[in-house]
Amino acid sequence: MANITVRFYSKCLNRHTSFQMYLPYGVNEEGNEYQKRGMKTLFLLHGYTGDAGNWVPEYLSDKYNFAVVIPNGENSFWLDGISTGHKFCTFLGEELVEFVRKTFNLALRKEDTCIMGLSMGGFGALHTAFRYPEVFGKLAALSSALIMHEVAGMKEGQGNDVANYEYYRECFGEPSKLLESDNNPETLVHRLKTEGKEIPRIYMSCGTEDFLIENNRAMHRFLESEGVEHVYEEEPGIHNMDFWSRYVLKFIPELFG
Amino acid sequence: MANITVRFYSKCLNRHTSFQMYLPYGVNEEGNEYQKRGMKTLFLLHGYTGDAGNWVPEYLSDKYNFAVVIPNGENSFWLDGISTGHKFCTFLGEELVEFVRKTFNLALRKEDTCIMGLSMGGFGALHTAFRYPEVFGKLAALSSALIMHEVAGMKEGQGNDVANYEYYRECFGEPSKLLESDNNPETLVHRLKTEGKEIPRIYMSCGTEDFLIENNRAMHRFLESEGVEHVYEEEPGIHNMDFWSRYVLKFIPELFG
Amino acid sequence: MANITVRFYSKCLNRHTSFQMYLPYGVNEEGNEYQKRGMKTLFLLHGYTGDAGNWVPEYLSDKYNFAVVIPNGENSFWLDGISTGHKFCTFLGEELVEFVRKTFNLALRKEDTCIMGLSMGGFGALHTAFRYPEVFGKLAALSSALIMHEVAGMKEGQGNDVANYEYYRECFGEPSKLLESDNNPETLVHRLKTEGKEIPRIYMSCGTEDFLIENNRAMHRFLESEGVEHVYEEEPGIHNMDFWSRYVLKFIPELFG
Amino acid sequence: MANITVRFYSKCLNRHTSFQMYLPYGVNEEGNEYQKRGMKTLFLLHGYTGDAGNWVPEYLSDKYNFAVVIPNGENSFWLDGISTGHKFCTFLGEELVEFVRKTFNLALRKEDTCIMGLSMGGFGALHTAFRYPEVFGKLAALSSALIMHEVAGMKEGQGNDVANYEYYRECFGEPSKLLESDNNPETLVHRLKTEGKEIPRIYMSCGTEDFLIENNRAMHRFLESEGVEHVYEEEPGIHNMDFWSRYVLKFIPELFG
Repeated sequence: MANITVRFYSKCLNRHTSFQMYLPYGVNEEGNEYQKRGMKTLFLLHGYTGDAGNWVPEYLSDKYNFAVVIPNGENSFWLDGISTGHKFCTFLGEELVEFVRKTFNLALRKEDTCIMGLSMGGFGALHTAFRYPEVFGKLAALSSALIMHEVAGMKEGQGNDVANYEYYRECFGEPSKLLESDNNPETLVHRLKTEGKEIPRIYMSCGTEDFLIENNRAMHRFLESEGVEHVYEEEPGIHNMDFWSRYVLKFIPELFG
Repeated sequence: MANITVRFYSKCLNRHTSFQMYLPYGVNEEGNEYQKRGMKTLFLLHGYTGDAGNWVPEYLSDKYNFAVVIPNGENSFWLDGISTGHKFCTFLGEELVEFVRKTFNLALRKEDTCIMGLSMGGFGALHTAFRYPEVFGKLAALSSALIMHEVAGMKEGQGNDVANYEYYRECFGEPSKLLESDNNPETLVHRLKTEGKEIPRIYMSCGTEDFLIENNRAMHRFLESEGVEHVYEEEPGIHNMDFWSRYVLKFIPELFG
Repeated sequence: MANITVRFYSKCLNRHTSFQMYLPYGVNEEGNEYQKRGMKTLFLLHGYTGDAGNWVPEYLSDKYNFAVVIPNGENSFWLDGISTGHKFCTFLGEELVEFVRKTFNLALRKEDTCIMGLSMGGFGALHTAFRYPEVFGKLAALSSALIMHEVAGMKEGQGNDVANYEYYRECFGEPSKLLESDNNPETLVHRLKTEGKEIPRIYMSCGTEDFLIENNRAMHRFLESEGVEHVYEEEPGIHNMDFWSRYVLKFIPELFG
Repeated sequence: MANITVRFYSKCLNRHTSFQMYLPYGVNEEGNEYQKRGMKTLFLLHGYTGDAGNWVPEYLSDKYNFAVVIPNGENSFWLDGISTGHKFCTFLGEELVEFVRKTFNLALRKEDTCIMGLSMGGFGALHTAFRYPEVFGKLAALSSALIMHEVAGMKEGQGNDVANYEYYRECFGEPSKLLESDNNPETLVHRLKTEGKEIPRIYMSCGTEDFLIENNRAMHRFLESEGVEHVYEEEPGIHNMDFWSRYVLKFIPELFG
């Protein structure tokens, strides 16, 4: 096993950033079939106020033989913001993937590459996988902050307890144009269907007492109405690590089993 | 000596951040007069595209017995941006100072507390010391990116090779209001004079071939016209580490000798 | 909260070493009574093959308001080895304690300072607290590798599956002299009693299926026979993190409640 | 570019260890011929009391396109010590090389793989390259601590200002058997010649005021007497970073130019 920290200069962020990695026992071992075709890899996305830290137990990586790549998304909603140097979506789906492929020979095929996130990171998992379906074969989105409809209705000077209007505009772009933009995961689903592209396999869950439960139910209904195959689960629970730990145990075997 | 990395949750940034520290030989040693009154401390600010890394040779810290605190300012110009979670000026001048005081018993008196930066960090050193003159007794500003007059003239859709309009608006606020705002170091100098407050001791330098030389000369003339005592030096040189290394050697003895 | 990594030059080890720290919410906050007298601190010792990593949940530090200091003891049995640069006991009980006191203003009084370890670190917690009873007021020793009697019987060329004779001699000194030496916790207990010194408060536990159960029972009987007050608990369990996690939950409130 | 820290479990050391890496601009870039055959790599060895830190300027790595791998050798003399878990030579020449090859696809061919060290690390560079000539094509040994003849004469209870007898015995094995053992670089040279194996290209230097100058001259004479091709340079200088920095500039182009 190995715990790895990488600091490198990101063109998308216009500055240095760092990410964490976990490599399981057996990575690239002789006779390991993944050595030849690129090890299985999980990109793991933190939530709002979070940073890069591994919330997947290492024994699961060892058991299913997958590497974990854990970037810092700051409070970006894993989107390309409007300011120079805030291209977190391109950073994640292009620059970081390319870096990991070339440096570690990982994540070479979408069948081997998954993305999982919680809260803001759940939004990021859905959005990034829909934006880069040729990179990510499967996604798991836990208690996802699918707040694009609320943000779309915001006016200058508004905001909420968490953040002000300028913050949301920086992350999502002009609110009035958000729903039609590429920052809306629904827009990306429509496009994938129109273009006849394969949609990544989707695993979603949310606690029934989570303040984001209606946002998640809305996405579930949207996917149903669009005929997009997906797993959607609810269970008693709130927006906390207890819930996410349980769904890590449930969804990791689906992603890598 | 010690090299220290601290990760902590910042209220100003709404997320975890980290900073670096260097402690010299002798910090808090018995019989060290600084043990009683708070060790001498240098806050060290990186430039645009940079991150927390020590560019003051450790032997200088050992010789003059000062700690170095090295925050990550991202590309914020060390200002409070307009979005929630972008309060880098308050982070630096209040939250980080308080954390360092309480955790390490450092930077307790302004006579012992200095701030130095290069390029964007030179702007930050001037601005932060003028904004928190009760914290920082001296400042050194190298090749400072004193671009407030250029930014003030920007219109929506404009920008330059380095960054777009939205980036500058995020950092500096509405350009049309910048020159009168607290984000303009000149405004802060006027206020300090009006309020009869002591202005920190100022050391500035810029290379004569630096693309920022005219901005630095303008600040020099401004300080002269305002009757603000300061050291200003020019020397052949461009915007690079060679120049900054020379001025570290010149200015550190002024700050801590 | 803060996660801290410190690299510093150790005179006892003749080289640089690093340690980890966790500071809880509230460390040194205004109105915190511990600010005046030195924050409560736990020194946390890893086992054989381990290294510095926090196995006490952070919420417990936050709840009981104690800092955690986590050194790297390598495979030293937390003893002063016979070779130059292997003084791990002096490093822990003197050099590291002094560094933490002076740099962080922590661990100033033995009432506030505890030591806990597992396996080799359980041996280390007992030994170090008995060696420095003026530093550590309480200790918790989990599944302790109290193997001094086995080591004392070793002859040159012997050893076991884990390590060779030379390794044990390096850590414990000449086996034939071990039982009378300061490397034997029993010797230290005798001395503390003879000198009329206060013995730290002792919490011990071991799983009934642990391969070290008889060694722990022997220490329990020894302490009983010496009339040394202590808590000793057994419970079904083996030598693994499941058992240690349960006893962290049980013993932390005893140490800091 | 990237700065990488790796923590992994070492079988040779019986515990976790960490190492540092620097990757230059251009590592594995498209059209980079080294992508196909394994990037050029420098293993960089610190001296006594040192630890893993990069003393090769990053711009040199960028210019000559080589990665730097920087292990922690503690005070082991980069030899397999007599105690279990002290196999630093095997760790370096086998376990770490294998890890770096499989994880980063580096150091695949000896033509691309060099080793450089200073002081104790200079001894290590010579010894390790002679021990693993199929791994390392070139070596640079600066101010090398070639003290095997002094150590060979030590008796129990002896030692010197730096370290005691037990320390030297732990590192080098029984002093009386040292000169014939594999821990003596001279023994390894004899064997390579006997077996008709290719000897790595050798670059040595030492300052004329260095306290190790006679030891280095002795190795120079030994290599001459054995007819082993090598570069040996002397220059005014002592045992310090000024000297080593100058020879990094001289020898890196020889290794990677």
